[in-house]
Amino acid sequence: MTHSHASKLVTSELRATARRLFDEIADMSRDPGGGQSRPAYSATETAVLKHIQSIARDAGLSAYFDPGQNLVMTLPEDVDADNYVLVGSHIDTVPNGGNFDGLAGVVAGLLCLLDRRQRGTGFPQPVRVVALRGEESAWFGPCYTASKALTGTLSQDELEQRHRDDDRTLDAHMADVGVNMALVRAGTPLTDLGRILEYIELHIEQGPYLDSIDKPVAIVSGIRGNLRHRRILCIGKAGHSGAVPRDARQDAVMAVAELLMRLDDSWRAILKSGGDLVLTTGVLHTDPASNAIARIADIVEFSIDIRSRDPRILDGMKGLLNEVVTKIGAKRNVRFDIGAAIETPPSVMSPALVARLTSAATDIGIDPIVMASGGGHDAAVFANAEVPSAMIFVRSRNGSHNPEEDMDQDDFLKGVALMRGYLLRTGDDGLASLRKSRVHGSLL
Amino acid sequence: MTHSHASKLVTSELRATARRLFDEIADMSRDPGGGQSRPAYSATETAVLKHIQSIARDAGLSAYFDPGQNLVMTLPEDVDADNYVLVGSHIDTVPNGGNFDGLAGVVAGLLCLLDRRQRGTGFPQPVRVVALRGEESAWFGPCYTASKALTGTLSQDELEQRHRDDDRTLDAHMADVGVNMALVRAGTPLTDLGRILEYIELHIEQGPYLDSIDKPVAIVSGIRGNLRHRRILCIGKAGHSGAVPRDARQDAVMAVAELLMRLDDSWRAILKSGGDLVLTTGVLHTDPASNAIARIADIVEFSIDIRSRDPRILDGMKGLLNEVVTKIGAKRNVRFDIGAAIETPPSVMSPALVARLTSAATDIGIDPIVMASGGGHDAAVFANAEVPSAMIFVRSRNGSHNPEEDMDQDDFLKGVALMRGYLLRTGDDGLASLRKSRVHGSLL
Repeated sequence: MTHSHASKLVTSELRATARRLFDEIADMSRDPGGGQSRPAYSATETAVLKHIQSIARDAGLSAYFDPGQNLVMTLPEDVDADNYVLVGSHIDTVPNGGNFDGLAGVVAGLLCLLDRRQRGTGFPQPVRVVALRGEESAWFGPCYTASKALTGTLSQDELEQRHRDDDRTLDAHMADVGVNMALVRAGTPLTDLGRILEYIELHIEQGPYLDSIDKPVAIVSGIRGNLRHRRILCIGKAGHSGAVPRDARQDAVMAVAELLMRLDDSWRAILKSGGDLVLTTGVLHTDPASNAIARIADIVEFSIDIRSRDPRILDGMKGLLNEVVTKIGAKRNVRFDIGAAIETPPSVMSPALVARLTSAATDIGIDPIVMASGGGHDAAVFANAEVPSAMIFVRSRNGSHNPEEDMDQDDFLKGVALMRGYLLRTGDDGLASLRKSRVHGSLL
Repeated sequence: MTHSHASKLVTSELRATARRLFDEIADMSRDPGGGQSRPAYSATETAVLKHIQSIARDAGLSAYFDPGQNLVMTLPEDVDADNYVLVGSHIDTVPNGGNFDGLAGVVAGLLCLLDRRQRGTGFPQPVRVVALRGEESAWFGPCYTASKALTGTLSQDELEQRHRDDDRTLDAHMADVGVNMALVRAGTPLTDLGRILEYIELHIEQGPYLDSIDKPVAIVSGIRGNLRHRRILCIGKAGHSGAVPRDARQDAVMAVAELLMRLDDSWRAILKSGGDLVLTTGVLHTDPASNAIARIADIVEFSIDIRSRDPRILDGMKGLLNEVVTKIGAKRNVRFDIGAAIETPPSVMSPALVARLTSAATDIGIDPIVMASGGGHDAAVFANAEVPSAMIFVRSRNGSHNPEEDMDQDDFLKGVALMRGYLLRTGDDGLASLRKSRVHGSLL
């Protein structure tokens, strides 16, 4: 598909709005250390949401904050709709992240609304676009905090996790920006889930797959679950690097290195047998106050993030981690304190919605690639809350969660065109039966 | 040996002086984070030296700062002696270290001088006691900086190393406290090495050996050399922890874990074949500004400290390190920048001085244990500068370089008694021939 073809999918005015929004928000959240930082529940996050709100209002859309202090945008005629399709994504980033992870999906939803506004017609079914806060785990540990709050599934344990910089709790930060914490703490959904017909999210891919097969967009079949330990401590004993013989050491660094290599071995074996798994220690450090070249480290702090589409593999890795820390602890005379596991089950996108997206893609001349998501997304929360959910991936060069993240605007506009095409399809291709089957299987 | 026997070796007045000095200096250098911090070339270091100076002067000793801004103390009658026995140790500590590592040797030398002053008699040969600065590598990277400056062996590369906290060079910090940097930079010894008959240092053991055999003191036969890389970088590529498959990763954490385990394997094999080796990574961290649970680490910074009494093993490990970083770099698609190696050769204590110390120990009823030193000491610098050198070790519970470091005062006073006994022996047991042989083999 050529540039000119992509251009035809979206008007030049919308193209300009997208570029302007991405550029302005990049400037609002530029980090002196490189890339963008939009911390969860921060003033920067709020400022970005208010900026998007003002642009939406200027274009004649309705735009307001929900009880989770997320920004909701609709066509004015759809404000009081009983049921609606929810289009969502998040606007926070990891520290020194890129500009598009999360934000692309919010801009995509907004462009679909603006497109209808320009043409003076609505959608076959009402559409709401939500710009969520706090999806990234980098700030507090738990991921998807805003969508969990919306669905009433943010746990007390998660609320008590502390911010990486100021050590205050997630609960306190959410309260600061005005989230209704009484409801959140009680596990009461902040929104009436029964009114959400389906949830659609556009997101950059985050991995290298689309780039490697040279395709601009894809449809997501499911999302990896994860098992996370935000802060594992390995506690050994300090000693002089020259004077303590090997057998008398309680070296926390060597113990952690052995643990990581043991997990790495199992990872390789699981992939070899066809299993799905990724495993990451993104944070690892000795104690900055006391570490020294000539001092055996008495403490190492590190994170572990294990993901799979297969819940049995996640369970297996959980067991393995517990077994290995005990074994290496005994062998190397150290103690591991692995803390609480934060677990998010894998989720499956609605097969009916995937089929409709496939059909919508074909309609506009886009090759309908279907792939699994390695990264986690708010869509997993809605899917696990029994809302039929689907996702559109847009190719991203250099992955995500880093300042080099790079999304081509033409690729993005193809994703927007696919979303618009999907939202404009009438319900004649299975939505009625889908809604029935959903009610059938739902707890709501 | 009982407490009462130990008490007889040193007067109660000297015991009280020792306790007072240790307590006062502990208070002067207490770190809010725990233990003692007396940074190299810091105001705390200077304040401690001035405090010791005032106590020495109050007791009628001569006490002055040398061109390296180390504190030198002598009996007044020995100030202008042509030749002298040098008793030394350092007063700096690692961050959050203990109180006795280094300081014990300075207090021991001072007590020997005070003992003579009290009795109104001198030593058979003049004695100078030097309280050295900057022995610990924790602050700048290079170790033994004050004794290297005294012997004219502090390299330009070492002078350019930067402080762990303020990033200013060792050169700048030494200049700040008034060291004659023109001489240091030119490699000119700050003292006339030809006048130093021998160098004696008392130090806590730092390792667990004396504690394990239940002996209070030992005589040191030699000091391990070391090969250090203060700051190795492993450079990979950031990416999303869930979205980047194993084969596409450039994970700096996993690469460093594999490197450490590879070195650990070799360490075990070398010990099995009877070789002497210790290996430590005391500092290890991902980038605190950008690391996150869900972000594959693009950079890991770490130190390596490798020590052995055998220079061939140090050479072998140097080759192995270079080989392994290349291999793992290629395998895991990362790059290691190992930076400059800082090397200190192993040193051998003078056999004649060890024999005299053994004899002095037997004279006062102390079992003359002879052992090698795992930790490095300023004595290595003097030994490698062809000054006949020897060391006395005092048992330390909980090793050293940590706040739990614990030296029993009775053990210490036995070490002091051994040093005094040694200094009081007349030169009839080989010193004359020793000095001849030294001149024969010396470059001075």
